[in-house]
Amino acid sequence: MVEQVRSYLEQHQDQAVSELIEFLKIPSVSADSTLKSETRRGAEFVLKQLAAAGIESRLVETAGHPIVYGAWKKAAGKPTVLIYGHYDVQPPDPLDQWTTPPFEPDIREGHIYSRGATDDKGQMYTHIKSVEAWMKTHGELPVNVVFVIEGEEEVGSDNLDRFLADNKDLVASDIAVISDTSQYGPGIPAITYGLRGILACEVIVRGPRQDLHSGVFGGAVTNPGNGLAKMVAALHDDQGRVQIPGFYDGVLELTQEERDQFAALPFEEATFMQNLGVNAVAGEAGFTTLERRWARPTCDVNGMISGYTGEGPKTIVPAQARVKISCRLVPDQDPKALTKALEQFLRDQLPPGLTMEFIDFHGCRGLVFDFNSPYMSAARTAIEQAFGTAPVMIREGGSIPVVETFQSLVGVETLLLGWGQNTDNLHSPNERFSLESFRQGTLASALLWQELSQIQV
Amino acid sequence: MVEQVRSYLEQHQDQAVSELIEFLKIPSVSADSTLKSETRRGAEFVLKQLAAAGIESRLVETAGHPIVYGAWKKAAGKPTVLIYGHYDVQPPDPLDQWTTPPFEPDIREGHIYSRGATDDKGQMYTHIKSVEAWMKTHGELPVNVVFVIEGEEEVGSDNLDRFLADNKDLVASDIAVISDTSQYGPGIPAITYGLRGILACEVIVRGPRQDLHSGVFGGAVTNPGNGLAKMVAALHDDQGRVQIPGFYDGVLELTQEERDQFAALPFEEATFMQNLGVNAVAGEAGFTTLERRWARPTCDVNGMISGYTGEGPKTIVPAQARVKISCRLVPDQDPKALTKALEQFLRDQLPPGLTMEFIDFHGCRGLVFDFNSPYMSAARTAIEQAFGTAPVMIREGGSIPVVETFQSLVGVETLLLGWGQNTDNLHSPNERFSLESFRQGTLASALLWQELSQIQV
Repeated sequence: MVEQVRSYLEQHQDQAVSELIEFLKIPSVSADSTLKSETRRGAEFVLKQLAAAGIESRLVETAGHPIVYGAWKKAAGKPTVLIYGHYDVQPPDPLDQWTTPPFEPDIREGHIYSRGATDDKGQMYTHIKSVEAWMKTHGELPVNVVFVIEGEEEVGSDNLDRFLADNKDLVASDIAVISDTSQYGPGIPAITYGLRGILACEVIVRGPRQDLHSGVFGGAVTNPGNGLAKMVAALHDDQGRVQIPGFYDGVLELTQEERDQFAALPFEEATFMQNLGVNAVAGEAGFTTLERRWARPTCDVNGMISGYTGEGPKTIVPAQARVKISCRLVPDQDPKALTKALEQFLRDQLPPGLTMEFIDFHGCRGLVFDFNSPYMSAARTAIEQAFGTAPVMIREGGSIPVVETFQSLVGVETLLLGWGQNTDNLHSPNERFSLESFRQGTLASALLWQELSQIQV
Repeated sequence: MVEQVRSYLEQHQDQAVSELIEFLKIPSVSADSTLKSETRRGAEFVLKQLAAAGIESRLVETAGHPIVYGAWKKAAGKPTVLIYGHYDVQPPDPLDQWTTPPFEPDIREGHIYSRGATDDKGQMYTHIKSVEAWMKTHGELPVNVVFVIEGEEEVGSDNLDRFLADNKDLVASDIAVISDTSQYGPGIPAITYGLRGILACEVIVRGPRQDLHSGVFGGAVTNPGNGLAKMVAALHDDQGRVQIPGFYDGVLELTQEERDQFAALPFEEATFMQNLGVNAVAGEAGFTTLERRWARPTCDVNGMISGYTGEGPKTIVPAQARVKISCRLVPDQDPKALTKALEQFLRDQLPPGLTMEFIDFHGCRGLVFDFNSPYMSAARTAIEQAFGTAPVMIREGGSIPVVETFQSLVGVETLLLGWGQNTDNLHSPNERFSLESFRQGTLASALLWQELSQIQV
């Protein structure tokens, strides 16, 4: 049975790549309100491809970008798999650092380069193609599937949460599957059993009503740029520890077993530094680079602006300064409580003469799953067959808020099966996805449906 | 004699305003390389008006924007006055905060609103009109005059310095006059006997080669945004004192006489705060607001940018962060030495994992002149007659680098006769200049030529 699926996938690989190219050409940047209709085109593309694969599908309108919902539930007595992905992408800037334009996909040295190539269009598309292969070769699937492909993953998934809460029957399932993470490295597939959570905000610090001449007024009023720098600087001590009161209270410390597992993974710090172009690694004292990335919380500036940023000098005291800050969180830190604590901490640092506005963007908790569940075993077998090597069990530093939502609203755990690589420049210029990973991921997905069908539900 | 000049000025006041409007329409933003030809148009306007006033004039080409040079030297045995001004203006952003567009002059409630209205087109133009009045009514001037009107005041005056050094004969004079400062307040004309100096720079801090996903990499590499904030925050202690080593070594402390004079000036801190829209004054501990503005050095952020500054969240570790910093200096701080000290201080704060580039924009020393010289007395008399009240003797917080240049290269002191007001929004949106001050300033200038002619040289 599986052999027919395998050969179907081989024969249709070129066509799958062509379709992916069309998908990637759509600038579905959910954060950019001027690209609203383009983002919708992303949803329409997914709808068309699901329908072509034989999955009954429709667009669900929301207050923001639509959700693509599809379902096939004719495998009586078999598990139901909730397949999640997102058709929206990160903003492409800085544009001048792209070798080829972000929405003109280009294939070079076995990779397809485009915004969304790996996060998440390319990875998500493997599951549509694997389902198509079963439907075209067998007319049916070995398991029940529910597709939920949203368009607001990069801006907080607010409307997805509402959809899931309001439509529990539609999304009822036994396990969720998401491909929006990475392999551990080239030739080292992985299953991710832990994710960091996140909180994100923007802080606007205001001083004088308008920009002032720094000669006439400088020294007599608090400069919002200097003031904001003081506030941001106070977020960390010299050991890289975050100074927000209570920040570490909820942190579930790594077990010695996990620290040993991480330490056993191949990791070359010199190569890591070279890949990123940095002359040192740095972070919270007392932890390795992998521990810092996967299992320790952070507090990062994502963006900052104040005053005059054009060419040459302009000697002003700026009227305001803004900073975007995000904290990556680990179990069992509470994003809502820590968002409040962050706001209060910054207000406590606010110098006299300034006022502060705090904008709470979104948050989600970190998660860790049991890596010995039957679902994990099924995924391990499918990946080993498709990639020719058993996956390692890892955590990841990124946040997929929907995984927490699936646990709290749908009551299911999630299999995080990443086909990408950490070097694929996700959220950066020159984002890419390996065509070989695209092929292997699609095969692993097809095999996974077979493996999952053997689990009693 | 002077009565003829007075009545000429009265009869031609409306025409002078019309000409000023034409001048202000020219977007001569010297810092903006895309406006190079517009900046040149500013020079051509000045040239035309000087010629019309009867002053033999020409454009002096430089590596940057041209200098307008004009001279009339037929008053044998009388002092030669070097009249300096600038036709270039500050960039107009933020544009959305202007009530009327910056280069479409608008007259409201007795003020003309436009970028350059007070700094320095409107103020400088008073001297062209006063000279014209003498020439048209008498066919000659009571003193010799040399006009040097440059187009690079807002970007460091580098080419002016070269012109002055290379043309000592052309600019040889006994005293310089500049109107590019302010009155003390409405109805309180002033002579400025001290100016702060300046140093200005841009610092670029670089981390990873490109923006990184803050989930995948956050916590394991130094964030340039956080790093820059630490560096900027380190510039001041909690008492508002600048922490650059040696920063205060050269500071000439205020005399008790000066502190008493400052304290005797009318100053309402509540009104000052209300005008600026701030809820507190702040600065170096142990000094009053006037002392902080006029006689104490500063270290201000002029602009800052890092990472994503568009709409909504984008969870990245930025590749770089930039800040523009300027320090206002007082006698006898050395801008060159302190620029080096600032660079070294910032390098000492640079966190591991980042590199730093330092761009030195320009600098000049602060100055204090003897306020009892015969030239000061002549100016005091002229202003008292034109404004109907004797001027107060003040210092100002701004920097006019050319005043130091005149002292070192031409060997003359400068009379700083400001016709503007501190509330004229110079370097800010809605810059303006009072038409009554324009009229009074032109008359004071005309009377000054008469007063100066009585000084033996």
